Amino acid sequence: MIKEMGVKAKQALRESVHKTPEEINLALEKMADGLRKNSEEILKANTEDMRLAIESGMNKAMQDRLLLTPERIESMAQGLEATATLPSPLNKVLWEREIHEGLVAKKISVPLGVIGFIYESRPNVSAEAGGLCFKAGNSVILKGGKEAFHSNLAIVTSMRESLKESGFPQDLIQLVKDNSRKVTRELMVAIQWVDVLIPRGGPGLIQSVLENAKVPVIETGIGNCHIYIDADADLEKAVPILVNAKMQRPSVCNAVETLLIHKDVAKELLPKAREALEGVELRGCDEVLEILPGVKKATEEDYATEFADLILAIKVVNSLEEAIDHIATYGTGHSEAILTENKEYAERFKREVDAAVVYVNASTRFTDGGEFGFGGEIGISTQKLHARGPMGLEELTSNKYILEGSGHARK
Amino acid sequence: MIKEMGVKAKQALRESVHKTPEEINLALEKMADGLRKNSEEILKANTEDMRLAIESGMNKAMQDRLLLTPERIESMAQGLEATATLPSPLNKVLWEREIHEGLVAKKISVPLGVIGFIYESRPNVSAEAGGLCFKAGNSVILKGGKEAFHSNLAIVTSMRESLKESGFPQDLIQLVKDNSRKVTRELMVAIQWVDVLIPRGGPGLIQSVLENAKVPVIETGIGNCHIYIDADADLEKAVPILVNAKMQRPSVCNAVETLLIHKDVAKELLPKAREALEGVELRGCDEVLEILPGVKKATEEDYATEFADLILAIKVVNSLEEAIDHIATYGTGHSEAILTENKEYAERFKREVDAAVVYVNASTRFTDGGEFGFGGEIGISTQKLHARGPMGLEELTSNKYILEGSGHARK
Repeated sequence: MIKEMGVKAKQALRESVHKTPEEINLALEKMADGLRKNSEEILKANTEDMRLAIESGMNKAMQDRLLLTPERIESMAQGLEATATLPSPLNKVLWEREIHEGLVAKKISVPLGVIGFIYESRPNVSAEAGGLCFKAGNSVILKGGKEAFHSNLAIVTSMRESLKESGFPQDLIQLVKDNSRKVTRELMVAIQWVDVLIPRGGPGLIQSVLENAKVPVIETGIGNCHIYIDADADLEKAVPILVNAKMQRPSVCNAVETLLIHKDVAKELLPKAREALEGVELRGCDEVLEILPGVKKATEEDYATEFADLILAIKVVNSLEEAIDHIATYGTGHSEAILTENKEYAERFKREVDAAVVYVNASTRFTDGGEFGFGGEIGISTQKLHARGPMGLEELTSNKYILEGSGHARK
Repeated sequence: MIKEMGVKAKQALRESVHKTPEEINLALEKMADGLRKNSEEILKANTEDMRLAIESGMNKAMQDRLLLTPERIESMAQGLEATATLPSPLNKVLWEREIHEGLVAKKISVPLGVIGFIYESRPNVSAEAGGLCFKAGNSVILKGGKEAFHSNLAIVTSMRESLKESGFPQDLIQLVKDNSRKVTRELMVAIQWVDVLIPRGGPGLIQSVLENAKVPVIETGIGNCHIYIDADADLEKAVPILVNAKMQRPSVCNAVETLLIHKDVAKELLPKAREALEGVELRGCDEVLEILPGVKKATEEDYATEFADLILAIKVVNSLEEAIDHIATYGTGHSEAILTENKEYAERFKREVDAAVVYVNASTRFTDGGEFGFGGEIGISTQKLHARGPMGLEELTSNKYILEGSGHARK
């Protein structure tokens, strides 16, 4: 099954290699209109998914992720229109040199090729990821969560119709219709047809892809993020940053999970922090418990956990080194912040902390393609190969060298 | 064992994060001097490897790859000195934007981290790869071929001494001293300590790494390269390019393996080609056999093979499409050339052929970091993630985003 889809995906890619950015943008607009036109069908399909979800006892938070409404479909359509307005990442000359007289080498951006995109319950990701991969000239094989299958199928069917109406091969966007584990595994090892796998979802999904994939993977999104409040921090700024990083949207990967605080300011700051973090469960080391009686003792496990919830672990540290060591031990290389007015310490933190995004005096919540001005975002990479940090359209491309000569042979 | 080396590698990385490009360059020069100073020891170790190789019946070509001479050691030393003169790839500002008032985001180049470098018999690769990884700020774990073990150990020991004398942690360059398959496998799955694996060697090595690795891999080097001679080719230029691509150095990955030739020019060109390719075994399709009686019939297998030898497969094709289809079926995405004076066909070939380097009217032999002016080369990537084509120092780096604010929280 994956083989068949892979062959079609590669074929579609070849057929569309001469399409212009304008043609791609028109197709994206057509897709947006298509979703609006087919919204009744899509909502009906979603109702079926919701019925099955409720039957199976899915929790309310998950149900909310799965639910589509006319507003959410309109927002998907607007997302595709916004993608159409972004500059094309293709055919940029990234480097150019005349390497011998009359022999010019150019490095240009080209599509990655066939992308396998594996995601979980939110059906709007089908439109978002499909649109971004298409904009960057790729062919995409979407493997959504089985709980969203009917919704995904309705969305992808609509997008494929729009592709056809726009003169593109439909198989540039395909949905895996078999939700068995076996087929997902097939996708992960399909090195002959799939150039890259991008998983987007919880730690379980990411782990499973890392375990099983033979296709190169861009790892995304696990964020055990820290804020270190240094002895030289401006405490007026510290509490609002902490509240923003923990409470604004606790379920996302750029939310803070552990507060590290220098011993010299712990007594002054922690009571204020507790007050401002009302509704957040705190778990601290012994020094924290002394200052904030009644707080639960933090375990080793707590420091290693991405809570993705209104829970914050706190540890008092004796030095910048101890804070950096803690982050090296427990961090996932996502987003790490220091709050300090000490320029030397800020410099050391920036250099020594090994993470996709390192902050000085700002909330970790800015780690986001939209905030960075990338337009769309396909995920946040926490690995070091190819892309690190928020991934936009550029990260969905590769490169090709073109050398044009007039009979050049190597000396 | 790998865990222990990984912990040391990461520790060494942290200890050297504040070193300047100047300090790195001085250490590279010190390493070059060290190799010269220790050349007697290195040659003695190599003699031992050669003795074992001859005992085990190693063939002459392999023996030549393994052999070190005073000249080859001098050349290693000069390679390190050349690496010292290259511009540092680190701390470049790759992108910068004020994403909110007073909140500046910068994308800067940083080391990849810990690199696992797996290679085969040539001991000079230890110095070359070790030097390039170090120049780009990385920590490297070298796993060389067991036949070159004594030579590699002598070279790496010398380089580590020079690191120490230059004030760097020695464990920035480590050699795996256990040559069992088990330990190599351990290196391939050491995701906690190793950020990226780079295999450099024959198809067997690359395949084994792709099969077994959990650490992200940069695939290098398998080159089943083609030259397509179009009906509109300048036949005066064609034969010299073909001879260069096949005969100059047949064992390397950028040598041509299959000639595709348009039917309209086959009769005129093939006899000239045979004459010029004296000493090369030709294997052709039926049309070739008609024009060149006595040539061996090419099999499916021949078209799929990187001969790395004085053998050339030849196929007559009816059109540009057929040539591009053949390349899509049998090519390995390395280097592909069209010889034509037809601009439209050249344009189509450049767009439609999916390879790291695509040529118009030039020999495939230019696919090389040195030729591209990259200074050193760690390998040639044939995959699409992170790096594609010749990889120099830039390809040995990742990036980090730095955001500096003054109390910024997300709205």
